[in-house]
Amino acid sequence: MEKRQELYAGKAKSVFETDDPDRLILEFRDDTSAFDGKKVEQLERKGRVNNRFNAFIMNALKEAGIPVHFERLRSDTECEVKRLTMMPVECVVRNIAAGGLCRRLGVEEGIALEPPTFELFLKNDEKGDPMINESLAETFGWARREHLVRARELTFQINDILQKLFLNGNLLLVDYKLEFGLFHGEVTLGDEFSPDGCRLWDATTREKMDKDRFRQGLGGVIEAYEEVGRRIGIDFDQAID
Amino acid sequence: MEKRQELYAGKAKSVFETDDPDRLILEFRDDTSAFDGKKVEQLERKGRVNNRFNAFIMNALKEAGIPVHFERLRSDTECEVKRLTMMPVECVVRNIAAGGLCRRLGVEEGIALEPPTFELFLKNDEKGDPMINESLAETFGWARREHLVRARELTFQINDILQKLFLNGNLLLVDYKLEFGLFHGEVTLGDEFSPDGCRLWDATTREKMDKDRFRQGLGGVIEAYEEVGRRIGIDFDQAID
Ligand SMILES: Nc1ncnc2c1ncn2[C@@H]1O[C@H](COP(=O)(O)OP(=O)(O)O)[C@@H](O)[C@H]1O
Ligand SMILES: Nc1ncnc2c1ncn2[C@@H]1O[C@H](COP(=O)(O)OP(=O)(O)O)[C@@H](O)[C@H]1O
Ligand SMILES: [Mg+2]
Ligand SMILES: [Mg+2]
Repeated sequence: MEKRQELYAGKAKSVFETDDPDRLILEFRDDTSAFDGKKVEQLERKGRVNNRFNAFIMNALKEAGIPVHFERLRSDTECEVKRLTMMPVECVVRNIAAGGLCRRLGVEEGIALEPPTFELFLKNDEKGDPMINESLAETFGWARREHLVRARELTFQINDILQKLFLNGNLLLVDYKLEFGLFHGEVTLGDEFSPDGCRLWDATTREKMDKDRFRQGLGGVIEAYEEVGRRIGIDFDQAID
Repeated sequence: MEKRQELYAGKAKSVFETDDPDRLILEFRDDTSAFDGKKVEQLERKGRVNNRFNAFIMNALKEAGIPVHFERLRSDTECEVKRLTMMPVECVVRNIAAGGLCRRLGVEEGIALEPPTFELFLKNDEKGDPMINESLAETFGWARREHLVRARELTFQINDILQKLFLNGNLLLVDYKLEFGLFHGEVTLGDEFSPDGCRLWDATTREKMDKDRFRQGLGGVIEAYEEVGRRIGIDFDQAID
């Protein structure tokens, strides 16, 4: 597959067209951002680590029957994916209270959420990714109701798969955000799954092993991502075929 | 029915027990608040005007088949209602963009919303009435999913009824919030419907005729409420039987 022009440079990844109109290349950069792009830094190895991390998770989800955009690793920092028409919406599931939920609702960090919660946010840095719902998405044309129903269903299926996967590495999947798009009409998981877009705590010590280390200036960000990867069986140096 | 002790004094109304365990008395005070109780004033005649206004709307809804708590006017500032177990949730429908929606989503005030939107907010002044959804309400025990489904259905039925009623007075029902509770297991409309909890614009000039006059310091607040009442056929001086 031939890499063609850059379509879009996001906060962490760049998206390239290919000679196949149905395929894109995602390049994971070292750029790390938080607070809707207000804090930005370069973290060495991040692009490489997240590209491998994402490939591992996407393959696990694909094996479990989830429709995912991921097709294959292309290089240390690139992968090939199905080209989706993205919905500008973030799907968030929470198993344990943390972050924005605690700020908005005054809930204590760390309490178990049963059943796990589901929220939708508009992908819009300028407006601070405001919380929305299915009704607003429909009226403003951001996504169709039936597509959000399917995205919600997939998001919860993914929760079951990934909670188990991480618990095998003695890690709690606290929360995560997913982005979905349409591939020839089918709601398909897009974007990435990496410690940039989820919270992972050591199940014993509750130490934070995710992007909160960056947000809160705790240091050892990429080291924590690598540790998470090792615990769930990722070989960051595996040859790409 | 005998009035007994005060149960609760809210921002605009006081709630009293009666000798009937299934009935309460609501007293509409002149207190007027905005911004989650941060701006508070006394507006002469408001209790009286809103009590009559609410009675008129509740009766119209009851005639149209909506289950409402309202039973009868008791005095100029009091009415008798069914005692509900309230859900601490506000149901908001919007026909035209205004207020918080514009602030949160950067949408222009005055654009038509098709289909009308539905949002849920937690009734919690301290936390600024944050937006929630059915999932959060279920997990935190604020309301059961099936009760919110019913509340949403009733809220949209009420929209059809009230849009017509106000348009007969050349008024646009821009948006409104409703509070529901349970009466012996049935989801029932509680609280009040008055210009304190909705937006009404003159259909020709788009002049604001609701609590935004108070929020924005435009003056003539109660005069506008009375004008709205007259236009839809309320006689504020009718004898109470
Ligand atoms: N399979 C796909 N097809 C089309 N666009 C995608 C796909 N996967 C991810 N994207 C989009 O590519 C961008 C990825 O770059 P990222 O740095 O995460 O951007 P952003 O700053 O917008 O979050 C996102 O806007 C994401 O929605
Ligand atoms: N039928 C009812 N049964 C029980 N409580 C009710 C009923 N109708 C309204 N309420 C509650 O009574 C209070 C009304 O007073 P209000 O001044 O509006 O209070 P608030 O400041 O809490 O909004 C509200 O808390 C409302 O939820
Ligand atoms: Mg992104
Ligand atoms: Mg109130």
